[in-house]
Amino acid sequence: MGKSTVAANLAVNLARRGFEVGILDADVHGPNIPKMLGLDNEKLIGTPQGMLPVPLYPNLKVLSMAFMLPNADAPVVWRGPLKHGVFQQFLGEVEWGDLDYLIVDLPPGIGDEPLSIAHLIEQVDGSIIVTTPQEVALLDSRKAVVFSRMIQVPVAGIVENMSGFKCPHCGKDIDLFKIGGGEKAARELQVPFLGRIPLDPDIVKDCDGGKPFVASQPDSPAAKAFEEITDRIEDFITHGGKRKKETPSSREKEKQSRFSRLKELIK
Amino acid sequence: MGKSTVAANLAVNLARRGFEVGILDADVHGPNIPKMLGLDNEKLIGTPQGMLPVPLYPNLKVLSMAFMLPNADAPVVWRGPLKHGVFQQFLGEVEWGDLDYLIVDLPPGIGDEPLSIAHLIEQVDGSIIVTTPQEVALLDSRKAVVFSRMIQVPVAGIVENMSGFKCPHCGKDIDLFKIGGGEKAARELQVPFLGRIPLDPDIVKDCDGGKPFVASQPDSPAAKAFEEITDRIEDFITHGGKRKKETPSSREKEKQSRFSRLKELIK
Repeated sequence: MGKSTVAANLAVNLARRGFEVGILDADVHGPNIPKMLGLDNEKLIGTPQGMLPVPLYPNLKVLSMAFMLPNADAPVVWRGPLKHGVFQQFLGEVEWGDLDYLIVDLPPGIGDEPLSIAHLIEQVDGSIIVTTPQEVALLDSRKAVVFSRMIQVPVAGIVENMSGFKCPHCGKDIDLFKIGGGEKAARELQVPFLGRIPLDPDIVKDCDGGKPFVASQPDSPAAKAFEEITDRIEDFITHGGKRKKETPSSREKEKQSRFSRLKELIK
Repeated sequence: MGKSTVAANLAVNLARRGFEVGILDADVHGPNIPKMLGLDNEKLIGTPQGMLPVPLYPNLKVLSMAFMLPNADAPVVWRGPLKHGVFQQFLGEVEWGDLDYLIVDLPPGIGDEPLSIAHLIEQVDGSIIVTTPQEVALLDSRKAVVFSRMIQVPVAGIVENMSGFKCPHCGKDIDLFKIGGGEKAARELQVPFLGRIPLDPDIVKDCDGGKPFVASQPDSPAAKAFEEITDRIEDFITHGGKRKKETPSSREKEKQSRFSRLKELIK
């Protein structure tokens, strides 16, 4: 729970930092990214050069099955091969432009979708595993770490979502989904821990209202936690997880090479 | 979130009412039912007559991919056709015995798993859609209702999970995932509303501890809500949602016919 919220807000954060960002909603059966970003009435536009993703900002472009559905209740009843075909189109026949980051929001589990994406994008820079801290959820997240390694996608790290909660009335801590489980799993599996996002009823409201909370409530503890998570992800992607001294020119060079790499990668 | 918790507790409730119950954990990639029922160290036993599901009670049998994994972190990387094959085995080559109810816990979404199950069990009695009340979650749940109709599985109804929350310190209501969204969707889509289960940190704890909360905390508001939901489901399955006057003999007859039907259905 919360994977799409994390994906949407990570994309918005990166775009606010000036990067060229794309977000691919790879949950064909439950495509919720457009609703979370207030784009639920948009449709894809076809051009002779290819389909155009829907821009939220000039430097943040969104692609989702939701843009192709006749109405919000329409289910997409496709088995794996059809989904593979649509991802091929989403990656190869869409005019993304030059991107620094392409965030792929995968559905829960380790089914056809991550296999297809890892197959189509030859060199994925990293996987981000979002989990709530309770043990039952961690069962799945630990499998996702092993799975990511198995398909040779480096694990950028684990985000602990809905981690901690303060009563909005009395201010006391409420131990709802526990705290620390994601961090413990990261330590045990020797992958980076990216940080914890506290539960906040305003995040749910913003999500339903189509406003990414990192933009609408930048001073909230959740948004601040998310800034740090974004720092760590940016660092992992730029330096492969190894923190290096950074010079403006090395950063520019790095960026340049990532530009061209992404273009090459999408086959 | 909470589908497996609802499935596990529904199965336990029905078993406590004296029915013969099976629970099939159809989430091949994230099989969490055994952990929730304290059966996470169990393995399947093969006999000449077929595989034996793992009993929680003499009248509650559990089957899950988790019973076949070498360790809890092992991911199952299977595409749709392989999953179809394993469901065929789970339904046809497992000694379930005579069951009154077979609860199938599906993974989130409307992918290969529900298609396979609906194909293998020719006449499913009903689908139960578990949703949290916020709008983004309801997008998926509404699609699930339309999907269930599309594959000719009657919708037994919608359960609104994590609906309402009281601060354990000050006792005030906290509007976390909103309230009423599931009921509104049920009304709009003209399917039964089965009830709401409040959020309760003890449910999370029980889940992680392998104890179904309906058995461990039968007097909690959540367990009481769950009793009513179980009533409505039992009623829907026994009478196809049409409440009838019930006589002991009609009930016995009904039960008899369901016994034989289930046996016929699993091909």
